[in-house]
Amino acid sequence: MSGLTRAHAEALDGADPLAAFRDEFLLGADDVAYMDGNSLGRPPRAAAAALADVVESQWAGRLIRSWTEGWMEVPLELGDRIGALVGAAPGQTVVADSTTVSFFKAVSAALDTRPGRREIITDPGNFPTDRYVLESIADARGMRIRWLEPEDPTHGPSPAEVSRLACEHTALVTFTHVDYRTGAILDMAQITRAAHDAGALALWDLCHSVGAVPVALDEDGADLAVGCTYKYLCGGPGSPAFIYVRAEHQAQLRQPIWGWLGRRDSFRMEQGYVPADGIRAFLSGTPPILALKALEAGIEVVERAGIERIRAKGIALTEHAIALADTVAGVEVASPRDPARRGAHVALAHPDAEELCRALATRGVLADFRTPDVMRYGLSPLTTRHVEVWDAVEALRALLA
Amino acid sequence: MSGLTRAHAEALDGADPLAAFRDEFLLGADDVAYMDGNSLGRPPRAAAAALADVVESQWAGRLIRSWTEGWMEVPLELGDRIGALVGAAPGQTVVADSTTVSFFKAVSAALDTRPGRREIITDPGNFPTDRYVLESIADARGMRIRWLEPEDPTHGPSPAEVSRLACEHTALVTFTHVDYRTGAILDMAQITRAAHDAGALALWDLCHSVGAVPVALDEDGADLAVGCTYKYLCGGPGSPAFIYVRAEHQAQLRQPIWGWLGRRDSFRMEQGYVPADGIRAFLSGTPPILALKALEAGIEVVERAGIERIRAKGIALTEHAIALADTVAGVEVASPRDPARRGAHVALAHPDAEELCRALATRGVLADFRTPDVMRYGLSPLTTRHVEVWDAVEALRALLA
Repeated sequence: MSGLTRAHAEALDGADPLAAFRDEFLLGADDVAYMDGNSLGRPPRAAAAALADVVESQWAGRLIRSWTEGWMEVPLELGDRIGALVGAAPGQTVVADSTTVSFFKAVSAALDTRPGRREIITDPGNFPTDRYVLESIADARGMRIRWLEPEDPTHGPSPAEVSRLACEHTALVTFTHVDYRTGAILDMAQITRAAHDAGALALWDLCHSVGAVPVALDEDGADLAVGCTYKYLCGGPGSPAFIYVRAEHQAQLRQPIWGWLGRRDSFRMEQGYVPADGIRAFLSGTPPILALKALEAGIEVVERAGIERIRAKGIALTEHAIALADTVAGVEVASPRDPARRGAHVALAHPDAEELCRALATRGVLADFRTPDVMRYGLSPLTTRHVEVWDAVEALRALLA
Repeated sequence: MSGLTRAHAEALDGADPLAAFRDEFLLGADDVAYMDGNSLGRPPRAAAAALADVVESQWAGRLIRSWTEGWMEVPLELGDRIGALVGAAPGQTVVADSTTVSFFKAVSAALDTRPGRREIITDPGNFPTDRYVLESIADARGMRIRWLEPEDPTHGPSPAEVSRLACEHTALVTFTHVDYRTGAILDMAQITRAAHDAGALALWDLCHSVGAVPVALDEDGADLAVGCTYKYLCGGPGSPAFIYVRAEHQAQLRQPIWGWLGRRDSFRMEQGYVPADGIRAFLSGTPPILALKALEAGIEVVERAGIERIRAKGIALTEHAIALADTVAGVEVASPRDPARRGAHVALAHPDAEELCRALATRGVLADFRTPDVMRYGLSPLTTRHVEVWDAVEALRALLA
C-alpha cells in the first residue's frame, strides 16, 4: 500500500494550500466523511449571514424599493460572475430557474432555430432530468432522440462518435460536460465542432463542472449551457441554476416561457411581449432573491479560492481516492484514470453498491448510490480533506472484509 | 369629512383584533406608510429564524440526508397548507417554480386536453406575465387569444361576457381572480361554469387573492389555479409559486417540463419519464428549500390569523381608504365600491398618477403606479394600520393641494 496510511492523508491535508477554506463553511455536529459535496455543497458561513442581512436590511428595511435598488440586477450580476468561472465573457449568463426549467428553455430555444431538423443527440447515461426534458420536448414536437451509446462507457461519448451520428437531421447535440456517474470530462471543443459540422447547435450541462473544473465556453464554441449551483458553488438546497447563451445567438434565440421579467421595460406592463435586450430575455418570472443572496456567498468563496487551485485539489483528492480504492478487493474504479479526463468525483463500482452505500451511512460515510452499481465519492475541493477520503475508503474496505 | 381624522384612524387600529400580528413582522427603521404589501409582504420575524435554522440544523447539520428526512415533501406539505387557504382539499396543490413558470405549466397542461380547440379567452387587463405566457404558448401552438374587453372595466369580465365569447373553439378560459389594478373580484363559480358550458377548462390566477380573500377552488369547480406567495403570504422576494390541479384531472393532465422531481421514484434515475402519482407530477426540478422554509413562516402567520379575520380587516382598510379618497379632489376611486366585489387593494386614478407616486415616495408613502393612471394602495391586513392609510391619503391630498 506504499505509504497509503491515515498519517499520510493527514500530511497531505497539512500541505493543502486550500485547507483554510474549510473554516469558512458551517460544519455539522457529527463528524461524517462527506463524499456528497458534489450533490449538495456544505453551507458557507457567509451564506447564513447574507440571508440574515437581506431579510433585515433589504426586505424589511427597504421593502419594495429594493427591486429598483439592486434586486433586478442580481440574476445578471451573479450570472456574469458564474460566467467568469466557466469561460464566458459578461452578458451571456443569467441565474434564473431550476436546472430543469433552465434546460427546458435552452433546448426549446435551440430547436426553434433548426425547424426542419427532427433529431436530438444525447447519451443514455446523461443525467435523468436532462433526458426527461428532452423526452418531453421531443414528444411535444414529434422529434426523435438519437441515443449515443459510447463504446467506452468510462470515458463517455467521443467527438468521433458524435461525428458519426450527427447529420443533416440533427438539430441539437447535448451532453453533460462531466458525467454524473463516472466523472468523465467530455471534449467540449471537439464535440461542439462535430455538432457544428453537421449544422447543429451544442448545449452543455455544466452541473458537475462549475466550480470544480475549468470550462471554456466561449473558447470552445459552445452555443448554450446550463448548470446548477448547489454542488461545487455551495448555493444551498435547490438553489437556482444558470443559463449561458452565446452572445452572437442572443438576437436569434428566443426562450419559450415569456414572462414579465424577460420583457423589455418589465414594469411598464405593456400589451404584447417584446423580449428584453441580451441575456435578460432568458428570465421569465420574479427572481428568487433570498436564494440568490445565499448563492452569492458560495460564488464568492469559489472566486477567492480560484478555479485553478480548486482544480488542483480536485485532482489530488480523486488521485488519492483511486490509489486507495485500487487496494480494496472487489471494488472497481469506474472513472477515467487520466486526471485530465476526470472531474472531482470518482465512481467505485461493486455489485452490492446500493447496500454498501446504506451500510457506509451508518458508519458516518455519506456517499451516493447511482444505478446500477456505483458508489459515487464526490470530493468538494474547498471542504473535503484527504483524511475523509481515507476514512471513506477504509470504511468500505472494512465492510467488504 | 364626518369623523375621518387621524384620531379616528388610531381608534380603528386600537380596536383591530389583528393589531398584535404586526409585532410578528420585522419593520424597517424608516416609518413609511406601506401601501405595497400586496406587491411584497413584510418579512415575518419567524422567516429570519427559519432561514437560520434550516442552514444550521438541516443544510449544515444533516447535509444530503435532509432530502430524505423531509425536504422532498416540503413542496407538497406547503402546497396542502396553501390549498387549505384557497378552498382546496389536500393532494391538489404543490409549491414549485415561479408564478410565470407555474402558469406556463398549467396552461400547457390544460391545452393538451383540448387538442382540436384553437382559442384561449382572457382579458387585456390581466397581469402582464399571464398575458405574455399565453402569447408564447399561442405563438408556439398556432392558437388565438380572444381578448375579452369588459364593458365595465371597474368590475372586470362578467360570467355573461364569458358565456358570449366562449364556444366550441375555446380550449381555456383564464383570468386573475382579483384584478391587479382595480382589485375587482371576479365571479369564479359562474365564470368557471361558463367555461365548462362551452367545454373549456378554467384556470385561475390567485396572486392577489391568496392570503387576502377567501377562495373556494374545489367548490367553485376550478380546474387549475396558480398563485404567488410573496404578497399576502409574505414569503419573501421572488418566493416560489403554487399550482393547483383538481384531483379528478390529475390522471389526464400532464405538465410540459418533465423533470426528475416529477418522475415516479426520482432517485432511481431510470430511463424514460413516468410521471409520479398525483400532484407531485407537476414538479420539475429540485425544490428551492431555503425559499420554501422562509415561505412556511409566512403561511403559518396567515393560518393563525385566519382568512376570515384577514378578510374582515381587508374590507375595513379598503373601506377606510375609499372614504378618505372620496374627499380628495381630482382622485377617482377605480375599484368596486361593494366590498364583496373588492380584494384588499384600492385603485386611485389620477392623470398624473406616475408622478404622484414618485412624489409620495419622497414623503414616506410607498405605493405602486400602474399604467396608465392608477396609484395602487395595497393594504396588507396583517401589517397595514388604519393610520398608515390615513397618512397615505393625506399625503396625496397635500400633494394635490
